[in-house]
Amino acid sequence: MKKIVILGASGSIGVQTLDVIAQHSDKLVCLGISVGQNIDWLKKHLIHHSYKLVVVKNQKDRDELSQLFPLQEFDYGDNGLLKLAILDEADTVVNALVGFAGLVPTLKAIEKGKDIALANKETLVVAGKLVMDTVKQYKVNLRPIDSEHSAILQALQGNSLDEVSRIIVTASGGSFRDKTREELKNVSVKDALRHPNWSMGQKITIDSATLVNKAFEVIEAHWLFNLPYEKIEVVIHKESIIHSMVEYFDGSIMAQLGSPDMRVPIQYALCGPSRLPLSGQRLNFNILSQLNFKPLDESFYPCFPMIIKAAQKGGNQMVIVNAANEAAVQLFLNEKIRFLQIEEIIKECLESIPYKEIMSIEEMVQLDHAIKQSVLNRYKETV
Amino acid sequence: MKKIVILGASGSIGVQTLDVIAQHSDKLVCLGISVGQNIDWLKKHLIHHSYKLVVVKNQKDRDELSQLFPLQEFDYGDNGLLKLAILDEADTVVNALVGFAGLVPTLKAIEKGKDIALANKETLVVAGKLVMDTVKQYKVNLRPIDSEHSAILQALQGNSLDEVSRIIVTASGGSFRDKTREELKNVSVKDALRHPNWSMGQKITIDSATLVNKAFEVIEAHWLFNLPYEKIEVVIHKESIIHSMVEYFDGSIMAQLGSPDMRVPIQYALCGPSRLPLSGQRLNFNILSQLNFKPLDESFYPCFPMIIKAAQKGGNQMVIVNAANEAAVQLFLNEKIRFLQIEEIIKECLESIPYKEIMSIEEMVQLDHAIKQSVLNRYKETV
Repeated sequence: MKKIVILGASGSIGVQTLDVIAQHSDKLVCLGISVGQNIDWLKKHLIHHSYKLVVVKNQKDRDELSQLFPLQEFDYGDNGLLKLAILDEADTVVNALVGFAGLVPTLKAIEKGKDIALANKETLVVAGKLVMDTVKQYKVNLRPIDSEHSAILQALQGNSLDEVSRIIVTASGGSFRDKTREELKNVSVKDALRHPNWSMGQKITIDSATLVNKAFEVIEAHWLFNLPYEKIEVVIHKESIIHSMVEYFDGSIMAQLGSPDMRVPIQYALCGPSRLPLSGQRLNFNILSQLNFKPLDESFYPCFPMIIKAAQKGGNQMVIVNAANEAAVQLFLNEKIRFLQIEEIIKECLESIPYKEIMSIEEMVQLDHAIKQSVLNRYKETV
Repeated sequence: MKKIVILGASGSIGVQTLDVIAQHSDKLVCLGISVGQNIDWLKKHLIHHSYKLVVVKNQKDRDELSQLFPLQEFDYGDNGLLKLAILDEADTVVNALVGFAGLVPTLKAIEKGKDIALANKETLVVAGKLVMDTVKQYKVNLRPIDSEHSAILQALQGNSLDEVSRIIVTASGGSFRDKTREELKNVSVKDALRHPNWSMGQKITIDSATLVNKAFEVIEAHWLFNLPYEKIEVVIHKESIIHSMVEYFDGSIMAQLGSPDMRVPIQYALCGPSRLPLSGQRLNFNILSQLNFKPLDESFYPCFPMIIKAAQKGGNQMVIVNAANEAAVQLFLNEKIRFLQIEEIIKECLESIPYKEIMSIEEMVQLDHAIKQSVLNRYKETV
């Protein structure tokens, strides 16, 4: 029996993880969850579920919930989150937090010997080396919850990493793939949130439209599979049917395909290489008819080359990119800036903040906070 | 060091196997070869190569070759072939013979504990149960040299057969896929031999045009992977880039893709799951642009459903189909019959020869010979 806690249980990945656990109660059990401010969801959820520990963001919510569910243990804030991440009885932490906030709980859980199922990609984006070194030191498994990295992991199964010649990460191209740069000037938040293939959280849907998400995935793949950037390619594949591919040095390519259903990578992260039965839509090649591919146009998606270049420089660069992007996406979602200002803000931050060599986790947290505050202040938003 | 003998060394697969062995002389060595009547090729080949044993079809050729290469040991005929198949020092037999002739040497090699790399698909088509039972009894490995079955094997690697929900075998549709049934009435041998994607031997190229080859591959897959026919689908995929796929019960599909290069399945059959480096053309998704799929039209390819139905009946049915097809293809290649008569001859044989339950290998050999003789006699051809 795998004993799981979920950080970020009320988001898209969190809810689907709860569904997977419910479908496989003979193999999986959930011991604790955290939610941020989605208290209405939590109130309904706790009518039918109880846990060793439930963590929320604010003390006020904790107090109210304790009144409503006197038998359930609650905690709150960053400390509560860390307590949940290292819960004694749990062996696996599903990290479905959004943004930089996912980093410290991941590290603490690894240090307590927990396996990690990681949906929070910022963890590896900002601190890939530190996280993977810690994974090695504490001999835990860290498995991706992400259709692309799960596809790569599945395509590596039964093969040797030494025989890999390249990884081909597919990209849908996001909500605005059929627009011109000119048209991007005035796109709305509503348009940006309309992803062509996947129903996901808001942050990742915007990151897909800017291709920041794809750059982050390349960086994640670099750390997860210990491959140089030269061996990681991106191709636009608008149907999102092939989730990614691995080419071996005999020229053979292994690909993983499927309908867009995040429960597949969730299950594989929890139980792989064993699979769990999952009902749902199946690919039908008699109807499917066509898979299309085209090169990534870097002039249409300038964030992509800018971020890959930053990642190759290393040091503080990805903390800067990530913090600038998180703040910019928040501003865009709140209609304080236009879509193309997201890339401008990332560029400005990269240019104005001096490069710095390898940093401690405390320095990363400080820098992240400082950048977000500075960007948000400029547009009168609070962190 | 893997010690190999090749049955059928001068054909398309045989020559490519020799190339693979030459490229990897640190891991592979060839101890013996057979060729049929391709004596000119053999004379050139033996100037630079020597083996423990070389087998040809006719005594006359053996005698001449012994004069030319006095230090090389030769043998001939069916007995020579069996001697090669069970050569003491060899651990692996590559069976690249064409047709029913491949069956007995395969069985004898298995009984001597040799691993089999099988390009001769008729072996499993006519006697799948017998062959797989023998494989189990003598605990040898039998691995397919065929792009489709190699793809399936690669897509199963690191996974469990128990978790497979279906296999999807891709089919190019063969030389005449863009014609109408009416146009098929008068197609030439030359047209039939022009396969859109693969350069292969004559027999298999004709079998691709009739889709007999694809029916045979479904039957092979049934035996190789111990799956019921209901779990094996065929889809027309004209680019032959995806070589086949395996769907698991979580809805995830693993596919193997590549340029058409038979050295990939040859290497995988010899050394899999380890891969060997292979230079050659790589897939470039920036140029590839499109993969197409469409349903198999059984009214255009009537051989396909006819043969699958026969295979499900079992007994002597696949010996009949295979013998009728081998004779018919020979007649077509020699311009004694028209293309559409191939399917007529198979149908007539299935209808006129009574069904019989499970047969001994001797009965199979007899029936095979009798059918071929009867079909060829009708058109004044000799076996």
